[in-house]
Amino acid sequence: MIDADTLSQASARVAGIVRETPVLSSPFLDEIAGRKVFVKAECLQHTGSFKYRGATNAVRSLSAEALARGVIAFSSGNHAQGVARAAAEAGAPAVIIMPKDAPKLKIDNTRSMGAEVVLYDRDTEDRMAIGTRIAKERGLSLIPPFDFEPTIAGQATCGVEFAEQLSALGVKQADVTVCCGGGGLTAGVALAFERDAPGLRVRPCEPEGFDDVARSLVSGQIEQNPRASGSICDAIITASPGTMTFPIMQRLCGPGVVVSDQECLNAMREAFLRLKLVAEPGGAAALAAALYHAEAFEGDAIGVLITGGNVDPEMFVRALSG
Amino acid sequence: MIDADTLSQASARVAGIVRETPVLSSPFLDEIAGRKVFVKAECLQHTGSFKYRGATNAVRSLSAEALARGVIAFSSGNHAQGVARAAAEAGAPAVIIMPKDAPKLKIDNTRSMGAEVVLYDRDTEDRMAIGTRIAKERGLSLIPPFDFEPTIAGQATCGVEFAEQLSALGVKQADVTVCCGGGGLTAGVALAFERDAPGLRVRPCEPEGFDDVARSLVSGQIEQNPRASGSICDAIITASPGTMTFPIMQRLCGPGVVVSDQECLNAMREAFLRLKLVAEPGGAAALAAALYHAEAFEGDAIGVLITGGNVDPEMFVRALSG
Repeated sequence: MIDADTLSQASARVAGIVRETPVLSSPFLDEIAGRKVFVKAECLQHTGSFKYRGATNAVRSLSAEALARGVIAFSSGNHAQGVARAAAEAGAPAVIIMPKDAPKLKIDNTRSMGAEVVLYDRDTEDRMAIGTRIAKERGLSLIPPFDFEPTIAGQATCGVEFAEQLSALGVKQADVTVCCGGGGLTAGVALAFERDAPGLRVRPCEPEGFDDVARSLVSGQIEQNPRASGSICDAIITASPGTMTFPIMQRLCGPGVVVSDQECLNAMREAFLRLKLVAEPGGAAALAAALYHAEAFEGDAIGVLITGGNVDPEMFVRALSG
Repeated sequence: MIDADTLSQASARVAGIVRETPVLSSPFLDEIAGRKVFVKAECLQHTGSFKYRGATNAVRSLSAEALARGVIAFSSGNHAQGVARAAAEAGAPAVIIMPKDAPKLKIDNTRSMGAEVVLYDRDTEDRMAIGTRIAKERGLSLIPPFDFEPTIAGQATCGVEFAEQLSALGVKQADVTVCCGGGGLTAGVALAFERDAPGLRVRPCEPEGFDDVARSLVSGQIEQNPRASGSICDAIITASPGTMTFPIMQRLCGPGVVVSDQECLNAMREAFLRLKLVAEPGGAAALAAALYHAEAFEGDAIGVLITGGNVDPEMFVRALSG
């Protein structure tokens, strides 16, 4: 159970380690959205995404003995880099299980951060079997990407900061769009707002065809996506909301917002032009919702969480060509 | 004469109006530079460059009567946008004299910020004559881009912030690279360091062929550039250092560092990959110096000012294709 104290402990644990990311704005974005748009640039976080917050809190919640043995995570992307860096900084060995066909850059980055990368073949090998064997042999602690209290509480620190920043800007009542995969960040931010800024409401944002959270919020039960791939928003493609994150989202979030891949590319271009930020497709979904689905929101202000910026040059060029 | 009090007055005048820009870092950049690299992301400033600081301080230094009459500036780029926004926020009419062949985006942006844009033909018209006539007719106050105390003192606020941020990071003794055109920012930051952090030393950075400041610092007198165009670093191409900025740079700055256009493009790519920042070519010169001219610096840490991010998509694509 994540309560107000859990959130405070997480904030204390990551203080001075995670970066307080700035809130930016532009009159040009306000004009598109028809209201004031306040963007928290979490793509500027260490390792280029919010995942470093949850990883730092989870790693630093471990005992000294567990840290000495090390941690393990499954990820082909942002969570891998977040855990690798958080573990290295805490002096813990890290094993990251990555698919052989993950982008070379992400594999290299994860290795550069000091992690031992174990590659597996998606077609012929079972990553869970590999991970479980290694974890057991070495006594490693698993750091799950979203359905795990220390991870959720770590992501919540982003919401604690945003609530404070919006309050300083005079925004106490607003929807806040959040890019949503398994719901770790979405649920964490919602818990932070419940405690610190009850006038702020989280709106989960997902790509078309992968709107499991939006549909789950409508049906009242955990829904699955029909496909496992097929969107450029790789960072937020998850089969379904977590069993731990979904009840939190159900209790605290407003309806989900579904955006197209092209809208994410357009939002990346606006972030480039107007905010001088690099957003990855999945990290721009929340901005796409605010800019191109204005009718889904009320009020004269909106908060937006740009969640990651780990995008290949080729994809960024595609967004700029838009 | 800009003294410690002038700097404090400027800081007070712009407080809560200009954005405090973050200081970012990446282990990947540290590895290239061979030392810790701390990057102040001034490209995240309102209007996408530091020019808004000087413009805000200069505009808000005017009397109520002068503000009511309005301001005027000559610029095809970042200073135009900075003055336009600063004037609009202070309720002052603004006239910006821009060349007819300036990028359409920059003309549109300046208009969008509420300024009256007066276009002139570089080949057949004299911009000074046009500006002087309009200024006289309407009683407008001129806001010069660098050789003007309120402008320099406004840019100095960037150095005041950076000194404080570096001190909080434990950096008290280091070179700090600054992209340098006419020297308004360079001189301002140097004055701020002289007052607040005497262990920090500014190193002006310029593109090859336009190293008027570097050569002036060597010869001890104001040197001119042989050409007026021919670098992609348009934001920092100025004929010569200012008569007001040069003596300050001469007294306080270390030797200039000269970088190639290709090094600026490479630095833009690194800022994209590692910091998730959009830098324009001239705004990346200081990062290029830190990364690719490591031998020009001493110590185990370096500060870098990325000064602007107003770059066309086409040029950014060129940097990414690197």
